[in-house]
Amino acid sequence: MSTAIDNPYYSPEFHGEYELISIGRLDLEEGGSIPDCHLAVATFGTLSAAKDNAIFVSTWYSGTHQIFRDEYIGEGHALDPSTYFIVVIDQIGNGLSTSPHNASGANADLAMSNFPKVRIGDDVVAQERLLREHFGIETLQLVTGGSMGAQQTYEWAVRFPDKVKRAAPIAGTAQNTDHDFLYVRVLREAITSDPGFHGGEYSSNADVAAGLERHARIWGVMGFSTEFWKQKVYTGLGFEDMDAFLAGFLQPYFAVMDPNDLLAMMWKWQRGDVARHTGGDLAAALGRITAKTFVLPIDEDMFFPIRDHVTEQAHIKGSELRVINDVLGHLGLFAVNPDYMPQVDRHLGELLATPV
Amino acid sequence: MSTAIDNPYYSPEFHGEYELISIGRLDLEEGGSIPDCHLAVATFGTLSAAKDNAIFVSTWYSGTHQIFRDEYIGEGHALDPSTYFIVVIDQIGNGLSTSPHNASGANADLAMSNFPKVRIGDDVVAQERLLREHFGIETLQLVTGGSMGAQQTYEWAVRFPDKVKRAAPIAGTAQNTDHDFLYVRVLREAITSDPGFHGGEYSSNADVAAGLERHARIWGVMGFSTEFWKQKVYTGLGFEDMDAFLAGFLQPYFAVMDPNDLLAMMWKWQRGDVARHTGGDLAAALGRITAKTFVLPIDEDMFFPIRDHVTEQAHIKGSELRVINDVLGHLGLFAVNPDYMPQVDRHLGELLATPV
Repeated sequence: MSTAIDNPYYSPEFHGEYELISIGRLDLEEGGSIPDCHLAVATFGTLSAAKDNAIFVSTWYSGTHQIFRDEYIGEGHALDPSTYFIVVIDQIGNGLSTSPHNASGANADLAMSNFPKVRIGDDVVAQERLLREHFGIETLQLVTGGSMGAQQTYEWAVRFPDKVKRAAPIAGTAQNTDHDFLYVRVLREAITSDPGFHGGEYSSNADVAAGLERHARIWGVMGFSTEFWKQKVYTGLGFEDMDAFLAGFLQPYFAVMDPNDLLAMMWKWQRGDVARHTGGDLAAALGRITAKTFVLPIDEDMFFPIRDHVTEQAHIKGSELRVINDVLGHLGLFAVNPDYMPQVDRHLGELLATPV
Repeated sequence: MSTAIDNPYYSPEFHGEYELISIGRLDLEEGGSIPDCHLAVATFGTLSAAKDNAIFVSTWYSGTHQIFRDEYIGEGHALDPSTYFIVVIDQIGNGLSTSPHNASGANADLAMSNFPKVRIGDDVVAQERLLREHFGIETLQLVTGGSMGAQQTYEWAVRFPDKVKRAAPIAGTAQNTDHDFLYVRVLREAITSDPGFHGGEYSSNADVAAGLERHARIWGVMGFSTEFWKQKVYTGLGFEDMDAFLAGFLQPYFAVMDPNDLLAMMWKWQRGDVARHTGGDLAAALGRITAKTFVLPIDEDMFFPIRDHVTEQAHIKGSELRVINDVLGHLGLFAVNPDYMPQVDRHLGELLATPV
C-alpha cells in the first residue's frame, strides 16, 4: 500500500504563503477522479466589486507560484497588483496542489505510484471551477503562463473562449511537439532508471538523488542555449565554471523535488494538445480562440523553437508574435537575465492596454 | 583482472573488409601507452607512383569506415577512387581499431575499464604514422571527416600543416564547446548509470542494454532537429511512427556496440581542442592552418550549430563556410537524405578542384 511521504520543500517556508483550497471531487479525462482535489493558490491585489480585474497565471514544470510572486508580479510590472487581482494556481502534481507525494486523507488511494493520469485539460477545469466557485470570477482580463503554463493558457483560451479576454502563452505550444515528447521521455527515464526509484515507491526523494541529478544535467543541455554556455553567462550569475553552476543552481533546484510529482507533470506536458477538442484539428481548435493573443517564444529556446510558435500563431485570429530575446533559452523563464522581465512587461503591458 | 570480450558486431561481417595494421607502441598525451596499437584501415583506389593522390578520411563517434564506403566514396562522388587513393582509418576506441573491448595480447592490460585516456591528438599521430610508414604517404590532397572526424581533420590541419593541402571538417569544431561537453556527459551517464555497466566490467554489452537504449533515445532528442520530428521525416524512411523509427533505427544501431568503446570515444570527443598546441589560444592554433579549408556545418545541427563553425572559420586563412542544408540535423551525416550527398559532393568537388 502506497502512502504519502513528507517533503519539506513543498511548504510555505520555500514558496511563501499560499492557500490550499479544495474544489471537491475532480473527474479526470483519462478516467478516475481525485476525490478531494486541493489547489495551492496565491493572490495579489484586490478583486474589484465588479470582479472584472482578474488575471490568471498558471505554473510550469517543476515551478510554483513563488517565481511569479518573486519575479513577475509587483509594482512596475505589467502584472501589477495595484490594478489587477492576480491569481496564481499551482498545477496539479506540482507538489503544493494535490500531488502523488502528498495524496492523503480522502486522496490516500492516489499516493505515489497510484496517482492517476492528469491532463492539462483537467488542470484548467479545476482552475476554472476554483476561480468561479471560490472567487466568483467569470472573466479574465488575461491568462498567462510559461512552458506548461503556456499549454494551460492555450487550453483556457480554447476551452473557455468567453472567459478569456487576453492570452499570453510564453515559451510553450498549444499542441506539444513530437520532439518535446521525446525530450520529456528522456527526462523521465533519467529518474525511473534509478534503482532507488523503485517503481515510484521510494521512501524519500533522497533515494532517487542520482536520477534527479541526471535529470538536472539533461536540463543543462536542453534548458539553456548553446550560446549560454559558450558565452559563459553563468559567470555573470556568480558561478566560477559550468560545473559550479550546475552544482549550485540546476542540481539543487531539482534535488529537493519529488520524483513522482515531476513524473505526473511530465506525463501531462507530453500530451498537452488543444486539438483534443476538435478531433485532432489544431487549426480548428486554435480558431476557437477569441482572446486577443500575444504568442511569446524565447528566441534561443531549444525545445520550443520560434518556428513551432509561428505555426500555431498563424491560426489565431488577430494574434501577434512577440519574440523574447534571451540567450538563456527556455530557462530564461526564471527571469535571471535583467533584460528578460522588461521585455515580458512590455509585451504584457501592451496586451493589457489593448481594448477587447 | 579485466579481459577483452567478444562482440561479433566488430567484424568484417558488419563493416566489410578492412585491414588491421599495427603501428607499434603509441605513447599517449595523457600518459601511458598502447603497447601494440592496431588501426583498422580501408582503402579505395590506387596510390599513384608519386604518392600524391591520397585523401584521408577519419571516423566519427560510433562510426566506422563502413559508412564512408557505402555512402561517401565511389564513382560519381567527390571521393572518387578512380582518381584518388582514399584511406579511411577507424579511430582508436571505435571497436575495430584498438579499443577497450578488444584489448588483448600485448594490450591485455588495457582491457575494458583499464583502457587509457586517448585524445584526438593521439589518433592523428597514429594515423600520420600509419600513412607514412605503411603507405609512404607524406602529403594529403584532402583530409575530411564528420563530427569527431571533423575534430580529427582540424587536428591534422593544425598539427601537420605541411602535409594537408585541403581540409573539409563536416559538422564538427576545432575546439569542442562547453555545451557539447555537457551533452556528451549526459550520454555517458545514460550508460554508466546502468547497474549492468558495473564500472565497465560487464561480461557482455547485453548487460548494459538498458543504458545503451537510453543513450540511443538521448541521441533521438539531440541528433536530429526539432523539424525532423515535426515533419515526420522518418515516414519517408519507411517507419510508421517515431517509436518505430527509434526502435528500428537508433536503438538497434547502438544496442550492438560496446559501452566501454563508446565511452573511450566520448572522453576524446569532450576534449577535442586544437588550442592545446598554442597554450589555449584558438585563433593562434587555427592561424597555423595552411590547408585550403571548407568548413561545412549542417544547418539544423542542434549541438554543432552553424554559429560555432563561423567563429572558428573566421580564424582560418582563405577558408570558406559552406553550409549543408539537412533537416536531419547532425545525423544528416548518415547520408539518408537524398539531398545530402549531392551537397557534400559539390563542396568537396569544388575544394578538390581548387589549386593549392
